Amino acid sequence: MRDTYGVRKRKVAVLGATGTVGQRFISLLANHPWFEVVALTGSDRSVGKRYGEVAHWLLPADMPDSISDMTVEPTDGRLDADICFSALPTEVAADHETDLAKTGHHVFTNASPHRMDADVPLILAEVNPGHANALEQQRRQRGWKGSIVANGNCTAIHLALALAPLHRDFGIERAVVSTMQALSGASYPGVSSLDALDNVVPYIGGEEEKVVAETNKFLGGWDGTAFAPAGIPMSVHCNRVMVRDGHTETVSLTLRGAPGIDDVKRSFRSFRGRPQELKLPSAPDRPIVVREENDRPQPILDRDTEKGMASTVGRIREDPVLGTKFVVLGHNTIRGAAGASVLNAELLVAEGCV
Amino acid sequence: MRDTYGVRKRKVAVLGATGTVGQRFISLLANHPWFEVVALTGSDRSVGKRYGEVAHWLLPADMPDSISDMTVEPTDGRLDADICFSALPTEVAADHETDLAKTGHHVFTNASPHRMDADVPLILAEVNPGHANALEQQRRQRGWKGSIVANGNCTAIHLALALAPLHRDFGIERAVVSTMQALSGASYPGVSSLDALDNVVPYIGGEEEKVVAETNKFLGGWDGTAFAPAGIPMSVHCNRVMVRDGHTETVSLTLRGAPGIDDVKRSFRSFRGRPQELKLPSAPDRPIVVREENDRPQPILDRDTEKGMASTVGRIREDPVLGTKFVVLGHNTIRGAAGASVLNAELLVAEGCV
Amino acid sequence: MRDTYGVRKRKVAVLGATGTVGQRFISLLANHPWFEVVALTGSDRSVGKRYGEVAHWLLPADMPDSISDMTVEPTDGRLDADICFSALPTEVAADHETDLAKTGHHVFTNASPHRMDADVPLILAEVNPGHANALEQQRRQRGWKGSIVANGNCTAIHLALALAPLHRDFGIERAVVSTMQALSGASYPGVSSLDALDNVVPYIGGEEEKVVAETNKFLGGWDGTAFAPAGIPMSVHCNRVMVRDGHTETVSLTLRGAPGIDDVKRSFRSFRGRPQELKLPSAPDRPIVVREENDRPQPILDRDTEKGMASTVGRIREDPVLGTKFVVLGHNTIRGAAGASVLNAELLVAEGCV
Amino acid sequence: MRDTYGVRKRKVAVLGATGTVGQRFISLLANHPWFEVVALTGSDRSVGKRYGEVAHWLLPADMPDSISDMTVEPTDGRLDADICFSALPTEVAADHETDLAKTGHHVFTNASPHRMDADVPLILAEVNPGHANALEQQRRQRGWKGSIVANGNCTAIHLALALAPLHRDFGIERAVVSTMQALSGASYPGVSSLDALDNVVPYIGGEEEKVVAETNKFLGGWDGTAFAPAGIPMSVHCNRVMVRDGHTETVSLTLRGAPGIDDVKRSFRSFRGRPQELKLPSAPDRPIVVREENDRPQPILDRDTEKGMASTVGRIREDPVLGTKFVVLGHNTIRGAAGASVLNAELLVAEGCV
Repeated sequence: MRDTYGVRKRKVAVLGATGTVGQRFISLLANHPWFEVVALTGSDRSVGKRYGEVAHWLLPADMPDSISDMTVEPTDGRLDADICFSALPTEVAADHETDLAKTGHHVFTNASPHRMDADVPLILAEVNPGHANALEQQRRQRGWKGSIVANGNCTAIHLALALAPLHRDFGIERAVVSTMQALSGASYPGVSSLDALDNVVPYIGGEEEKVVAETNKFLGGWDGTAFAPAGIPMSVHCNRVMVRDGHTETVSLTLRGAPGIDDVKRSFRSFRGRPQELKLPSAPDRPIVVREENDRPQPILDRDTEKGMASTVGRIREDPVLGTKFVVLGHNTIRGAAGASVLNAELLVAEGCV
Repeated sequence: MRDTYGVRKRKVAVLGATGTVGQRFISLLANHPWFEVVALTGSDRSVGKRYGEVAHWLLPADMPDSISDMTVEPTDGRLDADICFSALPTEVAADHETDLAKTGHHVFTNASPHRMDADVPLILAEVNPGHANALEQQRRQRGWKGSIVANGNCTAIHLALALAPLHRDFGIERAVVSTMQALSGASYPGVSSLDALDNVVPYIGGEEEKVVAETNKFLGGWDGTAFAPAGIPMSVHCNRVMVRDGHTETVSLTLRGAPGIDDVKRSFRSFRGRPQELKLPSAPDRPIVVREENDRPQPILDRDTEKGMASTVGRIREDPVLGTKFVVLGHNTIRGAAGASVLNAELLVAEGCV
Repeated sequence: MRDTYGVRKRKVAVLGATGTVGQRFISLLANHPWFEVVALTGSDRSVGKRYGEVAHWLLPADMPDSISDMTVEPTDGRLDADICFSALPTEVAADHETDLAKTGHHVFTNASPHRMDADVPLILAEVNPGHANALEQQRRQRGWKGSIVANGNCTAIHLALALAPLHRDFGIERAVVSTMQALSGASYPGVSSLDALDNVVPYIGGEEEKVVAETNKFLGGWDGTAFAPAGIPMSVHCNRVMVRDGHTETVSLTLRGAPGIDDVKRSFRSFRGRPQELKLPSAPDRPIVVREENDRPQPILDRDTEKGMASTVGRIREDPVLGTKFVVLGHNTIRGAAGASVLNAELLVAEGCV
Repeated sequence: MRDTYGVRKRKVAVLGATGTVGQRFISLLANHPWFEVVALTGSDRSVGKRYGEVAHWLLPADMPDSISDMTVEPTDGRLDADICFSALPTEVAADHETDLAKTGHHVFTNASPHRMDADVPLILAEVNPGHANALEQQRRQRGWKGSIVANGNCTAIHLALALAPLHRDFGIERAVVSTMQALSGASYPGVSSLDALDNVVPYIGGEEEKVVAETNKFLGGWDGTAFAPAGIPMSVHCNRVMVRDGHTETVSLTLRGAPGIDDVKRSFRSFRGRPQELKLPSAPDRPIVVREENDRPQPILDRDTEKGMASTVGRIREDPVLGTKFVVLGHNTIRGAAGASVLNAELLVAEGCV
């Protein structure tokens, strides 16, 4: 099969296809010009059954018909797909992804186990596309024909996207962040309604550490042999609130040179990266959208901006303690998960890396 | 009428009795040993009608029968009550409260207009009971027989209560705070359900400034002629979330001498004040309750601690940027509003100031 | 301006454009092939201001740019628009709509005052397109050049759409209905979050009577001089629940001849009307969608079916008391309000009635 | 240990003590004058651990200290407790409860398996206390020293309580019911927040059948050898809504003799039963509370009426199809579950049956 530009479509698989992130992958890949979903994998409970029968579909648009009739396969090295998008649960992701890379598959993973590996690039397409150069070393040292490319935690992705222009234009000295995270970030069934209703849970296991480590990896460099994290001291408070989709983060930070609010806004607004240059199919026109209203961004109004692929920033103002503060919001299962992996795959295909 | 201790009960009025805070006042005063509700005031729309007919009662326990049949009166200087608890709307509070103080009433107000006045004590009973000494100057300079005592904004109260022992034991150098505030804080009808459902609103008009100013007034001193604010640099992000009652605040701060986590916990746990010494009727046994579970405090589980009169603190841990961090939660219409005023009145009655 | 079919676009106005239904009209008309929005009206508070400045936009997609810069006009007979879509508040709708019809405008109203008028057709495009014939008498008797066409209450529309095929194929003898209605049905700010959170309100003023009367008018006839209501005895319980969009209704009813469940399903599935024959721009392919899963329809999954223009029916089963029962769900501000009016206008334009 | 009346307290166990209903049992029994909790049972995962460590406590008041340190035991016949309150999961309840009755325990169960057994009384203390006479036959035929007494499904209990006076005073010919049920009815973790938020689920597996069968058993008789169900034709639609506690039910029904609305209200209001005559510790003063406001009952306002032990009825009015309609609401885990079992135990202790 060829797309409208005459390019042969790449065969892709979605690993762990029944969960909330797996469903987002399916939805984003449904009419993708470069990728064709040829395989869906699931746990033993689902293998051999129709996808439509085992998936508890949670997205408002109906499941694509072509997907609903596919038979769920086990996740193993015999998958007849060139590119694998992984939404595997943490506890099984590490091994499966390694096996697939060994057998020549290019794995774009949303799972956490490999994110901080010394030879796995953690890529946010506008921010650190150059980390893809680590793949050469990954393949050589591991003896793989395939590869593993990770994207980050949903909270880290939107934080790093918002911080990237500021770090590039001014330099970030320190940051204090407090989050209000959506329920879909805990997958399905995830958070019990009895914990969510009329409540805030001020804790998400392991999340705060991940956000700090991954954001620093995103904003750091690849020196040809190793990743050099940005080393920005960060404090993160993670909270779960009763919102379906869209993580909101309040950010207070110190920028070098104490730039004015207008400089900060300009930095956000002018930010573009390789996905925009290459006009990748899933690239947002504006990776960061700045709102001027004093009560924005809000999940219900801003999470779907740029089809959920942008971070929306608002309330940019002076911070009496650290210098600058703002609020950033983004869709946690689109740009914060499945959409980020798809964009990473588009980038690496366009750059000829996979 | 005398209470069980043979003390004659003081006659009290609730000003602005129909709103969410007015209802809390009524509920807290229903069987109060020292106070007897003899008057309820409301807007022109309500005056002359039965309270039960005009109040949209929102508390789970039924409205006390004795209250339901009272006739709503206008708010003016002829009120036959010694003590007035004010839940008046901001736009009318300033004038009414001044008139009442002039005519000999002791006004304990939850409204904001007088909070930062140079001669109005803003009292948090465990934290700065000595500010009551300002009343002498207030009466002398204004020529009042009565008085005005303010309590703070709901977010400031719980923040100041949590910061007080730390400021006393160590000294606070700076703090960054992010809040998740309950809907009842906006009174009734307040926040539209269309703004609240599946959403976070990262803005509450005027709130951030109030929290900073009031917290510094609470933690500061009265030098005999003027209030000296604590002068702690603070940055506050205020957010509204879909919770009925209970404000949650994440706090990152720098303490002098960099005390250890155990020292901080000890400071919270050992904190007591005049209300506990005097065993005031509404005083919580523990003004600050420390939880060790990693996912506490939560609104549904902790807002009613000590009948809603305590702040609950949890997740006390090191902060990589500022030194120490924790989460504090408290009931916004009990300790954060009506309950704080009632406790202030008890304190000043017990100390013979009113 | 001409559309792609070479037809000159009709100039339309949205009356009461700032509310939740007004916003839906704007969103549905944004790129309409036959209609061009040339005027927006609002209350005195908004007149003369930019729409973008006065509307509290609540839809997830951004307000169309072309709309945001329009100046809000007063609602009066000088509006330079051929067709007017009315989302006016009940208390002002009656007079404004009459004035506009007098001055030659064709008013398609979502407001309730004229719905039960003896000469105003209450049209549900698939169900009773023939009621449009009443316009001739309306114009003649009232001396109008313009006209008023009403659509129904949001709950009545989805009920009538679901009942229409059953009434045509079998005849309905009686029905008992209980609803769970969305918050957007009460417009903005509408229901207070304090009444909505963790709650059900088992009452919506005037709603139960409207649903019975309007459903019977929809399902009845026009005999050339008068409307003959269907006369089906109905009992309706109306409840408000914490859902943004999408009314859910449980229906128990008695059908003549006691048809089997499969007959009932076939009746729903085969239902089509004039909008489908004429392939009107806003017509759903399937006005009624039948789901077989035992836990459907659900608001989050089914309200956007057919772009919000269909009713989704599920749980069709035997009723031990009345014979047959099912659940019907539909989007209350699209098919239940603005979308129904737009479809009515398309129908009457296509049929040459306006 | 003896209570204040000099009666020796009965030793009781709570079976399945960690779930939402188990927690309610603990909370209701904490300071019970007749019962002393001496044992808590749980699944293999919990056995041998401190209750405070394994229970995810969800009630606003803190877990009683005396309970928190108890060690969870397995559910078996060696339990040293005279009376067992069962909140066991359906799949294990049947066998465990039979074993306990065999070994001399009196089991008051909230689980469903034995409810419809031919020799197990399903008791609603005000409605059918005489069904306790079936215990004699139960013990004789089964050779048990102990016994099993069931209470009903949470929806059936409040429906039957509301219908009981009407059936006694007039006779019920048929009823159509639609429910809006709370999340706590599905225990913990129960309903996923992703299914609950902004949604209605119009299906609860097996619930509709249970409500019909159990309500008819409650309202029927015991003829000395068998239960004779009331035989009222009923249609029930069950729906799950985003409410923590409190089931709301709309009821349309036909009463013999077509009594007027005032007669119906009088019937509700005058209803009393054995628990009120015997002044049992958990008996509500008024088993049915009638509200006259047109927007009541509501979960947040009425679920805690009479400490959660009453049903609240409102909107009593004529039904155009069936004759009479109203709304009934009650707390699903207090009167609808744990509280009903405790009241049953009190009744049978007071009557000398156990």
